[in-house]
Amino acid sequence: MWHRVFARCNRTKHWRRNTAVDISKDFAQHMQAQDIRTTQLPNGLTLVMERMPDVRSAAFSMLIPAGNIYDPPGQEGCAAVLSDLITRGAGDRNSQQLAFDLDNLGLQRSESASGSHLGLSGATIADRLPDVLRIYADIVLRPQLPADQFDAARAGIAQSLHSIEDEPRQKAMQELRRRSYPSPWGLPSDGNLEGLSQLTADTVRTHYENCFRPSETILGIAGNFDVQAIQKIVEECFGEWPDKPAPTVEVSDWAPNVSHIAHESTQTHIGVAYESVPYRDEGYYNAWAAVNILGGGMSSRLFTEVREKRGLCYSVYASLSALRDQGRVFCYAGSTNERAQETLDVMLAELQRLPEGIKEGELERCKAGAKSSLIMQQESSSSRASAVARDWYHLGRVTTLDEVHQKVDALTVPSILKYVDEHPADNFTVLTLGPESLEVNLGVS
Amino acid sequence: MWHRVFARCNRTKHWRRNTAVDISKDFAQHMQAQDIRTTQLPNGLTLVMERMPDVRSAAFSMLIPAGNIYDPPGQEGCAAVLSDLITRGAGDRNSQQLAFDLDNLGLQRSESASGSHLGLSGATIADRLPDVLRIYADIVLRPQLPADQFDAARAGIAQSLHSIEDEPRQKAMQELRRRSYPSPWGLPSDGNLEGLSQLTADTVRTHYENCFRPSETILGIAGNFDVQAIQKIVEECFGEWPDKPAPTVEVSDWAPNVSHIAHESTQTHIGVAYESVPYRDEGYYNAWAAVNILGGGMSSRLFTEVREKRGLCYSVYASLSALRDQGRVFCYAGSTNERAQETLDVMLAELQRLPEGIKEGELERCKAGAKSSLIMQQESSSSRASAVARDWYHLGRVTTLDEVHQKVDALTVPSILKYVDEHPADNFTVLTLGPESLEVNLGVS
Repeated sequence: MWHRVFARCNRTKHWRRNTAVDISKDFAQHMQAQDIRTTQLPNGLTLVMERMPDVRSAAFSMLIPAGNIYDPPGQEGCAAVLSDLITRGAGDRNSQQLAFDLDNLGLQRSESASGSHLGLSGATIADRLPDVLRIYADIVLRPQLPADQFDAARAGIAQSLHSIEDEPRQKAMQELRRRSYPSPWGLPSDGNLEGLSQLTADTVRTHYENCFRPSETILGIAGNFDVQAIQKIVEECFGEWPDKPAPTVEVSDWAPNVSHIAHESTQTHIGVAYESVPYRDEGYYNAWAAVNILGGGMSSRLFTEVREKRGLCYSVYASLSALRDQGRVFCYAGSTNERAQETLDVMLAELQRLPEGIKEGELERCKAGAKSSLIMQQESSSSRASAVARDWYHLGRVTTLDEVHQKVDALTVPSILKYVDEHPADNFTVLTLGPESLEVNLGVS
Repeated sequence: MWHRVFARCNRTKHWRRNTAVDISKDFAQHMQAQDIRTTQLPNGLTLVMERMPDVRSAAFSMLIPAGNIYDPPGQEGCAAVLSDLITRGAGDRNSQQLAFDLDNLGLQRSESASGSHLGLSGATIADRLPDVLRIYADIVLRPQLPADQFDAARAGIAQSLHSIEDEPRQKAMQELRRRSYPSPWGLPSDGNLEGLSQLTADTVRTHYENCFRPSETILGIAGNFDVQAIQKIVEECFGEWPDKPAPTVEVSDWAPNVSHIAHESTQTHIGVAYESVPYRDEGYYNAWAAVNILGGGMSSRLFTEVREKRGLCYSVYASLSALRDQGRVFCYAGSTNERAQETLDVMLAELQRLPEGIKEGELERCKAGAKSSLIMQQESSSSRASAVARDWYHLGRVTTLDEVHQKVDALTVPSILKYVDEHPADNFTVLTLGPESLEVNLGVS
């Protein structure tokens, strides 16, 4: 999430070109000028393109404002079923023909529902991109949503829900997320079995008709292609898509909470969450650094204290979750039942002792990891397509990797401590899953 | 696995340069000349380097012949514990200092045990590569293997074994693999709890002393670096590593088998395996195409027949597994208990009806997917580092992506049918995990 940044973009139909400027120190030699162009069609669809002259692939990421927050209450799972059904026939291709034609283009693709979006993405050889986009215009604007495949699509989501029941680690983190955000924001994207059972093919079609609209849709494309030709194709394919008003979403109240899910198992799964800031917040990079120092890798505090020094668990981490308007830190540890209480105690103690001080070395490692990630990301068209689309969603503009680099470089121990002081780790939401519930002991180390 | 091919390499200390030649049709424009160089140090260590001038990263993959096939019988899990313990201090750095210094280089790294190898890999900004290699020389030649961290390393592996017990999908495929190869080849890389309990810090050190040797170690490096400078560093760092004889491994008899693991769950997990050919076999690409047509993607037969048409399961696939001297096809489906028998029946019917015919369209899709994957792979230094190292292990030479492309292009429906005729899907090993065992009905559709 963190590795996305800020370059000025326009919301008009005219191009503005963002190129890299003034990057600091020895790192500058590694960063390439990025050629990022943004345009908005008259119907509101935003097209963000990054041209990558050194690759031969092209990738796209299309975010459509039809995620599971728009699921009708009592029929949760609607967006998830739609994300399956939407590729089962479009335009004049039936389900099988559509799969065949996309596979013939060598497209590696995926469809998914998240809270805010239904996401369609794919990657292939760059010169296949025009054909891919034309087929996706059918998928987005003219899906068949065949009623006779509704049961199969729903069964797939139902079985995915069943399988989560068998995977307590995922189950624990899904339940932690549900309890950490006001509903419907934290709800599982696949919904629930009760909601699915109430769903009909008509509900799914209505979800499509209510939610699919150009004005909050973002199409990110990255790779080696002719930007003007691709813009023209996007305009031809998506320009006539009529806009409509956004559906409303009712958001519940929320407060931190502690809960336990009884589960017979050899292990206890521990999830801890607390409030952080969203990506667009000016404190975001300090928040990111704090979480990284806590639980971002093998020299992080949680890894060192919980796993390496005490051997309490096989897996432990902390990560930052960001919706557009709110953020959370999610921490996980899996432990034997016998050592679960000690694991939770040590985790909470580590979270709370961060304001006591951060070493320069911790910050340096954090920066080194960030810079290395930037280099990797700039080499992947899929990463970039996804990053430019999500950037636009979160910030209403697209950022360059140079700017991320500058933000990372500007981090200091005092800036992080100031952030941590203003946003302390407290008001924990705790979810445990295992045979026995645990005590939330604050102030223990 | 399939995407690796054949370029002539020398086993001497002198370079030979492999560049791309004569690639067919429109695809040629997408492929780059590859600059692959192979050398063998006098002590037997093989260094394979691919220079990628368009990237800024560098990645390495080191395969050391110390995998879990060398675990002492009754002390399984030895290689897995070693793969954890080996980065807990090396040379004059203790565990924490080593993690700090690697993180300071921005290295994204992993350590793992497989049947044949203990694998160390990582990726970072290209100019950090010399420092990374110097630290890895300490890890490989001078690990501290501290006895006081043995319990923590073992506990990590033990908890990973416990967690597999909670994840029936993984458990089923692990048990299928165990039953599909002669022991010790199919054994789980983490060993088992009984074996772990017998393990001591001394056994792990002995495993290191017996197995770690240059003569079957392969160091693959890919990215944007000065090949002569890197070769010099590798020679300095690893040239004095003394060779020793390989330990022997006793391999059991094996025959296809059917078994069931009782597990209370809402789902039944179904694994089916049958014999295929290893990567170095001349029939490999036909084997790969056959498996791809069966279960390689969303227009594959298993996906279409089992999931899309009948909604029997949420996940189904077939894939090719290749050891150096033997290969298997592994198929998986997860289903509700009620529909598990029907799912298995349909899977087996699809496997058996492949010799009846393959459509040109199926082959075309298979080729399109392969070519697209080739393009993606050529853009990732991590993919290439790993590919050149594994190529060397399987073939004793390194292959270019062009040559894979030519092999894929040369596939025809008759060539695949001939392969399938000579290597029919039969003598199934079947493993089911769920509340009820299933019947293996052959000849049912």
